[in-house]
Amino acid sequence: MSSRLVMKFGGTSVADLERIRRVGRLVAAEVRAGHKVAVVVSAMSGKTNELVAWTDQAGPAADGLPPSDDEYDVVVASGEQVTAGLLAMTLRNMGVPARSWLGWQIPIISDDAHGRARIDDIPAEALGAAVDSGQVAVIAGFQGVTSDGRITTLGRGGSDTSAVAVAAALKAIRCDIYTDVDGVYTTDPRIEERARRIPKISYEEMLEMASLGAKVLQTRSVELAMAQHVPVRVLSSFVEPGEADPANTGTIVCDEEEIVEKRIVSGVAYSRDEARITLLGLPDHPGVSKAIFSRLADAGVNVDMIVQSRSRNAEIANMDFTVGRRDAARAVELMNALKDELGFEEVRLDEAVAKVSVIGIGMRSHVGVAQSMFTALADKGVNIQAISTSEIKISVLIDAAYTELAVRALHGAYGLDQV
Amino acid sequence: MSSRLVMKFGGTSVADLERIRRVGRLVAAEVRAGHKVAVVVSAMSGKTNELVAWTDQAGPAADGLPPSDDEYDVVVASGEQVTAGLLAMTLRNMGVPARSWLGWQIPIISDDAHGRARIDDIPAEALGAAVDSGQVAVIAGFQGVTSDGRITTLGRGGSDTSAVAVAAALKAIRCDIYTDVDGVYTTDPRIEERARRIPKISYEEMLEMASLGAKVLQTRSVELAMAQHVPVRVLSSFVEPGEADPANTGTIVCDEEEIVEKRIVSGVAYSRDEARITLLGLPDHPGVSKAIFSRLADAGVNVDMIVQSRSRNAEIANMDFTVGRRDAARAVELMNALKDELGFEEVRLDEAVAKVSVIGIGMRSHVGVAQSMFTALADKGVNIQAISTSEIKISVLIDAAYTELAVRALHGAYGLDQV
Repeated sequence: MSSRLVMKFGGTSVADLERIRRVGRLVAAEVRAGHKVAVVVSAMSGKTNELVAWTDQAGPAADGLPPSDDEYDVVVASGEQVTAGLLAMTLRNMGVPARSWLGWQIPIISDDAHGRARIDDIPAEALGAAVDSGQVAVIAGFQGVTSDGRITTLGRGGSDTSAVAVAAALKAIRCDIYTDVDGVYTTDPRIEERARRIPKISYEEMLEMASLGAKVLQTRSVELAMAQHVPVRVLSSFVEPGEADPANTGTIVCDEEEIVEKRIVSGVAYSRDEARITLLGLPDHPGVSKAIFSRLADAGVNVDMIVQSRSRNAEIANMDFTVGRRDAARAVELMNALKDELGFEEVRLDEAVAKVSVIGIGMRSHVGVAQSMFTALADKGVNIQAISTSEIKISVLIDAAYTELAVRALHGAYGLDQV
Repeated sequence: MSSRLVMKFGGTSVADLERIRRVGRLVAAEVRAGHKVAVVVSAMSGKTNELVAWTDQAGPAADGLPPSDDEYDVVVASGEQVTAGLLAMTLRNMGVPARSWLGWQIPIISDDAHGRARIDDIPAEALGAAVDSGQVAVIAGFQGVTSDGRITTLGRGGSDTSAVAVAAALKAIRCDIYTDVDGVYTTDPRIEERARRIPKISYEEMLEMASLGAKVLQTRSVELAMAQHVPVRVLSSFVEPGEADPANTGTIVCDEEEIVEKRIVSGVAYSRDEARITLLGLPDHPGVSKAIFSRLADAGVNVDMIVQSRSRNAEIANMDFTVGRRDAARAVELMNALKDELGFEEVRLDEAVAKVSVIGIGMRSHVGVAQSMFTALADKGVNIQAISTSEIKISVLIDAAYTELAVRALHGAYGLDQV
């Protein structure tokens, strides 16, 4: 039995017919290589935005009527439908048997959380039989169908999730995510030109990279791949098949056990989407922390790092914590509402901060990683405002102006510059 | 039980969100008037052309593969899907309960003649129940689904057919076709400014009007309405509800029996889409006509009028016939291939001809209609090249330069100028 393979192409890879033909050539090459192929496609670049703009103009449902999220999905899901049909036509034009599959045709059954639905089940018998017969299945990504037959969408970036879920349902050997970069890098090449492509990375590391700002794969799709043990490969769609093979083997995201040589640090990530909030002169008595963080949690504000700094007067402390920048104003408002109750002096907001992280599964079995991080930063005069750690990463909060300097210093300190 | 009503809006009526809101107001007015409403919509003006252009760029299927008409339908049907979702959202925004229904959701079951499918069945229980509950059903026109779950389209203008078929399935009191004109006119108002809107016209007359060039309703939709006894009303979507009522009652197309006052002539139609082909010096012996017209029929060329004119030498005749202009070159080619076999002298093509017709169910019980037609044309010096008749129409072929003159002369001769 030859092996099933899932390939996924995002909006910029299918932006026009010329690019769709290049996608067709990449698919045809995998068919010639003996794979049974399912392809998941996004809407043509820009189309989703056009459709979303129209739904904005249509306006929200009036009071007393159900919200229009279901109809939003009907409109927006049409974008992927168009690409699926066009790629199927293009493949047939190249002599490759193909047909399109829409979410409701497979079906990709989801819950009814319109606009951000989660996939419940993909009964893939018919799809698998079609694929095994040698007919490429061109699947409209990003969409599903409820058990009572309404169209859903999986939320922005949902096509990655569609692709991984289809790969799991088809028991595919791999899910290849074609994108506009040729893999996952040790750090952002725009900051450090010596950044290198990582040939293999574990799901856990990829999740830390993604959530910390390396926007290559949707977090949800990586979580799903990890749960279903689907190997994912990230690679560029902007090459011709057969051309420049070593440059387009991409990055494999897989189980930790499959990575023989575990580096202590695999990559350096950063995020400027941070805001630091400081509560000055906070009386230190039991229940204060609980009051602060439960208020934030109730309002849906995610808190990342927390630092409590005791002043010389041991009964007065300062409390620092960080939130995502879009939650900053809301968090300040919530804190000001607590001011009298808790009796602190002032709330301060600092948005000129960045979070820089080193990530690596090798940390699990190595000590001294944090030490060398702090040393490298101190050598460059970078002041650390807060620290948070997990089993496989260490993050520090710093003045945003030092972001590039810190990233480059750490990239060098852990030997990531060396091929 | 309040009455079910089907409303249909074409592409220019839903070209942007402002126009979709006007459609929403027209629908809301019918809901307020107590109707249970299903609305059939076309794609936003221009969208179908954009989608078709993409499918052209994708190219035909390679030899040995099935044609891509099925995928063409997947791409093109997305246009109506977008409009259906947007109108449902717009109605909810106005406080009117609504939901979209795609072809596969109702389902509108069709055969698998992709690109020009015919509707087989519309099981309308669920749709009818939704409509009766007070929820406006916004139906994507132009599309169906095969019994094995592939999307089909009904061919250009198929949304009219969708609307009539849905009206029949719902046993609606009427199917209102909103368009960019406010009804069917006694003739083309661009030619005769005294043309008047016809309040009521029979299906048979409408079919003659439509096939003769009055492009208001798709012929197929009128045939279906006639077969299913669905009253159809043609009216303008470019008015506000409640505004200018006498100007927007439109034209009712219905069974002949429902028209009390049957005019002898209801309208004057014309078509410039004609070509006359002449075979000069045709030996007159049995089997000649059969050879000519079976050759044309085999090639799918429709012949309309035929005139055989005997010359003084009784064994040599000329043969004239007319075909649609797009078939003209092909017909000439077919005739030239017959030249030696039949032994005629020459094939001539004249595309500077027009067909002008008077139409009216009253002709069935009146004599002298043709006589007054020929008199009116002779008075203006218009030469008649050929004549064809049916029970309810008389058509003449004339020099195209006289088209407007002839239309105005006939419009006056049958008293259609008078209110």
